[in-house]
Amino acid sequence: MKKLINAPEDVLIESLRGVAAAHPELSVDFENRVIYRGTPKADGKVALISGGGSGHEPLHGGFVGYGMLDAACAGEVFTSPTPDQMQAATLAVNRGGGVLHIVKNYTGDVMNFEMAAELAAADGVEVSTIVTDDDVAVQDSTWTAGRRGVGVTVLLEKIVGAAAEEGRDLASVLAIAEKVNAGGRSMGMALTSCTVPAAGKPTFDLPDDQMEIGIGIHGEPGRHRVPLAPARDIAAQLVEPILADLDFTGGPTIVMLNGMGGSPLIELYLMYGEVARILESSGVTIARNLVGDYITSLDMAGCSLTVLQADDELLGLWDAPVNTPGLRWGL
Amino acid sequence: MKKLINAPEDVLIESLRGVAAAHPELSVDFENRVIYRGTPKADGKVALISGGGSGHEPLHGGFVGYGMLDAACAGEVFTSPTPDQMQAATLAVNRGGGVLHIVKNYTGDVMNFEMAAELAAADGVEVSTIVTDDDVAVQDSTWTAGRRGVGVTVLLEKIVGAAAEEGRDLASVLAIAEKVNAGGRSMGMALTSCTVPAAGKPTFDLPDDQMEIGIGIHGEPGRHRVPLAPARDIAAQLVEPILADLDFTGGPTIVMLNGMGGSPLIELYLMYGEVARILESSGVTIARNLVGDYITSLDMAGCSLTVLQADDELLGLWDAPVNTPGLRWGL
Repeated sequence: MKKLINAPEDVLIESLRGVAAAHPELSVDFENRVIYRGTPKADGKVALISGGGSGHEPLHGGFVGYGMLDAACAGEVFTSPTPDQMQAATLAVNRGGGVLHIVKNYTGDVMNFEMAAELAAADGVEVSTIVTDDDVAVQDSTWTAGRRGVGVTVLLEKIVGAAAEEGRDLASVLAIAEKVNAGGRSMGMALTSCTVPAAGKPTFDLPDDQMEIGIGIHGEPGRHRVPLAPARDIAAQLVEPILADLDFTGGPTIVMLNGMGGSPLIELYLMYGEVARILESSGVTIARNLVGDYITSLDMAGCSLTVLQADDELLGLWDAPVNTPGLRWGL
Repeated sequence: MKKLINAPEDVLIESLRGVAAAHPELSVDFENRVIYRGTPKADGKVALISGGGSGHEPLHGGFVGYGMLDAACAGEVFTSPTPDQMQAATLAVNRGGGVLHIVKNYTGDVMNFEMAAELAAADGVEVSTIVTDDDVAVQDSTWTAGRRGVGVTVLLEKIVGAAAEEGRDLASVLAIAEKVNAGGRSMGMALTSCTVPAAGKPTFDLPDDQMEIGIGIHGEPGRHRVPLAPARDIAAQLVEPILADLDFTGGPTIVMLNGMGGSPLIELYLMYGEVARILESSGVTIARNLVGDYITSLDMAGCSLTVLQADDELLGLWDAPVNTPGLRWGL
């Protein structure tokens, strides 16, 4: 295993130390492993928290800041954070307007966020929850009942963060979150396995001449292994199941071509060119896009595609100012 | 070779197609392989162009936009662009204030930019040139006479871009560029080799239990191969030669912990934490920082450290608004 780490068991806490050193505008609670905004939002506004296993950076800690999350709870690599982390974050960010929990659909995350919501409710904090489940690759998976939550989570944190920043109430913020999750679909692929530090070896074997289509962000199996193919064929294998699952014609879309952590930007732009061409020739109008590493799987080489139905309201929220380590514009 | 590409010979042009599709605010000249701002800067201001071999993204094309470059010339992977590309870019961006060429110190780049400057001068365009040579790893190298130009190039493009945007004249812009290059030092390391698409196999062999200290951004040999070590030891091996080469105490610094393309953000933040700790305990004050992939070497796993002497003037230029795909703040 070749990694820029010390001991595998210290990866999370030492990475958080680096985040704290690099981002004085954030505040890191090392005991609870929660990343907060340095400047809390105004009283009465809805607060947003998310979290999950580490190894998907910049998700979620890199999306804490003005216009996105109020806090992110970091679990160990590919391991859900605990309910007490989530409860601490929920109590800390509440400004009286209630708190939205943004949860990717994995069994541990869903269960722990549920428990945290109950604990916070007992403390008098109103909590609503959105569970993202946008991955069309598999119906159920190793780690989920139902579809996995992947790339839509990034777009949702941005859009819903803007709605909360505007001062919309919890019911309205939740409605936007549900609309985004309902209108977004994703599909990923891997050229190589990731290596979890504690395991010390690749999560799965993938021969030199094969790739995995429909991979999960923890290296969970996808739909099938197929021979290595040119980018244009990979693009088709990502676009087709997404368009087969939901109609993206008839309105604008937001498209993300996301890197899994080990694929360089020159390849991601090349893939975006292929994906955009196929989408447009299929009658899909791309109004906004992101290309880069946003929801990763440690050092996995590969990419995922997310397509989101948008409208004037969602585009307006997308364009609103955001100031986080991972996404920043308009400020 | 596992890459998200079609044919190796089409990587550059197809990646540029993706850049054009993703960034409607930029303008791509596919024939000359130049990325321009969509909106040229005002008449009379100094224009900045840079360029070099591809495979270092986001450098340079990702730094075209308000507050940084006016144009970037893209060569084939790890191959200098040609003088006619540079000449076309120079003539196109000139607004009457002259043009600064920002050139990394590699023999091909230096020679071709020199020729382009002569051609542009013959066309009546005033050109000045800054050659960056900040890599302390080796004195001469496979591809250079003198030190290699690496991470300082990123910081220089930001700072000097702000000076040009302010309306300073060419002599003054060049003076800032010289000050930045003189006050910046870098050192890199690799855990794995990169793989050039046209070669189809890793550039060098690096055993599973070794790393290369002082690596170049094309995979050129560094100082030595040493056994794999914990992040804190790697950090020390990057910091020490930099501090031995120039005194960074007594004033603020800007520090960049840069990923080589294949190392995930969780590791880069961990490394930044280690580097920041050593720098601060050595009496170096970090005023600003960058952590992420800014000058890469295709899919190489590893990182580089850049430290730059700053002062109020340079920090003010650093903080000035910038709006490019790779760096964006204040707008």
